[in-house]
Amino acid sequence: MKPLILVTNDDGIVAPGIRSLVEAMSTLGEVVVVAPDSPQSAKGHAITITDPIRIRKVDVFDDIISYECSGTPVDCVKIARNVVLKHRNIDLCVSGINHGSNASINVIYSGTMSAAMEASLEGIKSIGFSLCDFSFEADFTPCMPYVKSISQWALDNPLNGTNLLNVNFPRTDTIQGIKLCRQAKARWIEEFQEGTNPRGEKYYWMTGRFVNEDPREDADINALENGYVSIVPTYHDLTHNESLEQKILSGLTEL
Amino acid sequence: MKPLILVTNDDGIVAPGIRSLVEAMSTLGEVVVVAPDSPQSAKGHAITITDPIRIRKVDVFDDIISYECSGTPVDCVKIARNVVLKHRNIDLCVSGINHGSNASINVIYSGTMSAAMEASLEGIKSIGFSLCDFSFEADFTPCMPYVKSISQWALDNPLNGTNLLNVNFPRTDTIQGIKLCRQAKARWIEEFQEGTNPRGEKYYWMTGRFVNEDPREDADINALENGYVSIVPTYHDLTHNESLEQKILSGLTEL
Repeated sequence: MKPLILVTNDDGIVAPGIRSLVEAMSTLGEVVVVAPDSPQSAKGHAITITDPIRIRKVDVFDDIISYECSGTPVDCVKIARNVVLKHRNIDLCVSGINHGSNASINVIYSGTMSAAMEASLEGIKSIGFSLCDFSFEADFTPCMPYVKSISQWALDNPLNGTNLLNVNFPRTDTIQGIKLCRQAKARWIEEFQEGTNPRGEKYYWMTGRFVNEDPREDADINALENGYVSIVPTYHDLTHNESLEQKILSGLTEL
Repeated sequence: MKPLILVTNDDGIVAPGIRSLVEAMSTLGEVVVVAPDSPQSAKGHAITITDPIRIRKVDVFDDIISYECSGTPVDCVKIARNVVLKHRNIDLCVSGINHGSNASINVIYSGTMSAAMEASLEGIKSIGFSLCDFSFEADFTPCMPYVKSISQWALDNPLNGTNLLNVNFPRTDTIQGIKLCRQAKARWIEEFQEGTNPRGEKYYWMTGRFVNEDPREDADINALENGYVSIVPTYHDLTHNESLEQKILSGLTEL
């Protein structure tokens, strides 16, 4: 029996990146798409709890059952499991291919990775794919063999402990290979562009620049800069075990 | 010189929880509030990148400089640092007090905790406070001495490694004390309530029930159920180190 593969993203169901991903997955199994009906970049792990959400069957990909969803990327995964697929066993969830990097700290802002994480919470093997190129016209061709082989590997092998891989592709035609990596210590330095609207009120557009502060060779950013595909096994337990082991905070229990 | 304390939340600037938090913080330092102008629960680490955001000075708390912000909780922290406080040194960021638990897996959906995490990314000591009571009329009185003493402790002591504490209060009048905890392994089992709108289209409301699957005594949910305040040192590095150490994924590098 063919494996059941759920495909989603955060750039919206008409983004070129998800089209490449659907194309790759259709060679590996039965594909069902549930993806946002509009761009949902940087929505993190947001879910819609104060409004209803809608889904609509659409004909976007040849011979592939596809739904657009009014909610966030995480909403897409939740409604896919519970409504569209009615608790059928999902063998793999793939999210992307994102237009833009989700390496390093981007993982916590990313709707693409949050959707994949949501599936992993439910015990579903899950992969977020991203290309370090924000352009809508980005060329996903060099990624395609890797998208297929990594997904097939995940279908064939256990991903013990974590069920979630954060896969980023360098922006290059000549990929050097794959490296297992750690989330780099890097951050955004924000700038806010100020403007005044026609009613005389100030508004601010967020912008910023990304700064890598991590010299470790196995930091994902460094692997990408050297032309490698970075894969970071990713997990949803945010406990800082070191602080507990080193008893840094034990004074708190005496308050 | 008095410490500078930034206060935010995700329930919105008029929620009773933030009022209690501002009251507590005003005994410890100079307080500045930047909080959402509308409820922003479950917005996770979402940021606003495709729209401008607005801030407006409001008179909500006596003698406290306060701004409401049109963005997400994380937006509030970013614009607070960069625009409202113009890169002044923030000694502590506190978020909440949230109406509802942010223990266990709730941490990844929580706007309250994401706002606190955003400050911690910038090297600011940061605490998210939540009460396990969703009601708008929740009684924050039993939390107050702990909110003050934990915040004062954080001002006085290094939080090496992580700068972020996830503090949850049990729903009880008689708190047993404080426990240092780990993020419990628990999850939501969703249900979608289906309806039909006046235009004949189906819609779905997300609902669900929370299931704790973690028997460990130091899991935060268990501490809370036993009447303790749970404190989980929390971190933004999602790398699953175990998978790297155990070489579970090394087959991937041979693809």
